[in-house]
Amino acid sequence: MSTGITVALGERSYTVHIGSGLLTDAGLLGRHLRGRDVLVVSNETVAPLYLDSVLPGLAGHRQRTFLLPDGEAHKTFENVGRVLAELSAMGASRDATIVALGGGVVGDLAGFSAALWMRGIDFVQLPTTLLAMVDSSVGGKTGVNLPQGKNLVGAFHQPRLVLIDPETLQTLPERELRAGLAEVIKYAALGDVEFLDWLEQNAERLLSRQADALQHAIETSVRHKARIVQADEHEQGERALLNLGHTFGHAIEAATHYVRFLHGEAVAIGMVAAAQLSARLGRAPAVDAERLAQLIRRCGLPTRIPPDLDAGNLLELMRLDKKAKSGKLRLVLWRAAGQAELVEAVADADILATLSGLQQFEHAG
Amino acid sequence: MSTGITVALGERSYTVHIGSGLLTDAGLLGRHLRGRDVLVVSNETVAPLYLDSVLPGLAGHRQRTFLLPDGEAHKTFENVGRVLAELSAMGASRDATIVALGGGVVGDLAGFSAALWMRGIDFVQLPTTLLAMVDSSVGGKTGVNLPQGKNLVGAFHQPRLVLIDPETLQTLPERELRAGLAEVIKYAALGDVEFLDWLEQNAERLLSRQADALQHAIETSVRHKARIVQADEHEQGERALLNLGHTFGHAIEAATHYVRFLHGEAVAIGMVAAAQLSARLGRAPAVDAERLAQLIRRCGLPTRIPPDLDAGNLLELMRLDKKAKSGKLRLVLWRAAGQAELVEAVADADILATLSGLQQFEHAG
Repeated sequence: MSTGITVALGERSYTVHIGSGLLTDAGLLGRHLRGRDVLVVSNETVAPLYLDSVLPGLAGHRQRTFLLPDGEAHKTFENVGRVLAELSAMGASRDATIVALGGGVVGDLAGFSAALWMRGIDFVQLPTTLLAMVDSSVGGKTGVNLPQGKNLVGAFHQPRLVLIDPETLQTLPERELRAGLAEVIKYAALGDVEFLDWLEQNAERLLSRQADALQHAIETSVRHKARIVQADEHEQGERALLNLGHTFGHAIEAATHYVRFLHGEAVAIGMVAAAQLSARLGRAPAVDAERLAQLIRRCGLPTRIPPDLDAGNLLELMRLDKKAKSGKLRLVLWRAAGQAELVEAVADADILATLSGLQQFEHAG
Repeated sequence: MSTGITVALGERSYTVHIGSGLLTDAGLLGRHLRGRDVLVVSNETVAPLYLDSVLPGLAGHRQRTFLLPDGEAHKTFENVGRVLAELSAMGASRDATIVALGGGVVGDLAGFSAALWMRGIDFVQLPTTLLAMVDSSVGGKTGVNLPQGKNLVGAFHQPRLVLIDPETLQTLPERELRAGLAEVIKYAALGDVEFLDWLEQNAERLLSRQADALQHAIETSVRHKARIVQADEHEQGERALLNLGHTFGHAIEAATHYVRFLHGEAVAIGMVAAAQLSARLGRAPAVDAERLAQLIRRCGLPTRIPPDLDAGNLLELMRLDKKAKSGKLRLVLWRAAGQAELVEAVADADILATLSGLQQFEHAG
């Protein structure tokens, strides 16, 4: 059971392979390494679990490994400098390859380093979290955080190959699996109501990590991601729809100092906020917002904004989001479940009312 | 007397304006600033001379200035981090602009910072050295040095606008003017024998900084640079010809720890080496190599390799040049003055003999 999905971007095209056991397919990885030098970037949690599966694919290459500590706090500009120093120390040439083995932090930082070394070398994504599989490993957005905000610094740099082995999800902490599901739900919410139906029918099978369900959810998500990235690689238009829930989510993450919520959890709340704001503005049926919130709750994800956060402060943080231009908000809202759209002018009062509403005690029913 | 040369790269197209007094043309600069925020990056030598000329063009924008110390030693990854922190501190949004006022160090570092902030914002080049005017400010190569080598880290990121005011060359130190002439001569050597004739006839007028001669030399150089960049933006082919003399030059710079020679001086020696190697291999007339060496000497530039450098070590350093792939050298040689070509397989013995020959006492005549 293995599927290949092509991201067609001319000379930057590549294939996302999805299938159980792919991580140990040395031939598939080896065929994509052009030059002599390979640097594996991973972290201290993932490497002990999976590095040995990957190394046979690097046979015949000059290879080094760079390990980050685990966690978002290490996705820094300084650590990019360390990866670049490692490439420098090994005398890596222009045809070197960086292999990213891990979740979104590893993939974003390793890909960014690959973008910068000699103005761009190959890199391969081996995502080991659901969030990285369905979102960050595909599409070429790379970067790191600054103290003032997430992903403020980065580059567009497409991988040469993405190998997704859903078996690695068997070791993923429960909370991270659920957070990854938020991004899966996002694809359904923004453009695929059939997939939304399927998720409603299969949420429990996903949560119990049944292989066929995971394979289908990942394949469907990657197909959506690939289609949108092909249409708008550099986010001039349609790609912005992938930010459904993200402007709210980023503000919630920032207000809670990036420690209380995982990214996917904040996005889950953010999607509920976007759907409720759409309903408040009369753009979309209120029943669709409730349908989305129910699915998110069933996946064990939060749907409410903590009452200790200040709505006005959240609105200010939304303005600082990097999607904003000179302080003007651009929000992804929807017409209905499965029909997202970009909206430029929303009154502050409506945003504030939506934020406050999500802080109220939840009504039974 | 002002000329506009377009670099046609689709949606990344821009114009290089060349003319006396352009630096004080506030309207021209102001029209190219899209957003609210502007960060001027300059250095401690250039800013006192020219910052006041530029500021009127930024009226109506939120503006800050970031000054580097003067010199190549400050073209570091750490200083990019400082520029990014400055953008972060001013809350710069996606439509912010970086204005680079200075030579190649300032332009490369400021452009690289612009490439990275939010995955790419606008930047404007205001080059104040001859080298930056004719070479580094046009074409979108940005980056910084690592301790192990120059420009090992970088990105392709085209400016939105280049304003070249040759009047700023009146304050340029003599040695830097001459170093800039090496890159001017390079365009003639690699592809324009008529321009080589003109340079032979006008070398003294350039050295005495006559405005019409400087304007013509800059215009002709920028036209060549623009044509080559248009044909091959990301250096897959023809753009590599711009490295004539650079593989030798980089090795000489590295062997002398980047302090004995300016970049242009090392390139001058490197061009003589490339021409002599071409003659040794029977690819090109020896007389053309001598013709090039004479012009370079007349411009007060070095043509010999210092005798204390070891030829074998220089060859090793050439292999580490980032143009090399997995240790294989690719050299720009020529068929004749004005006809450069990329050559993949040159015997070590021929390179060593050329290097040693350039260390011998120069024969009279």
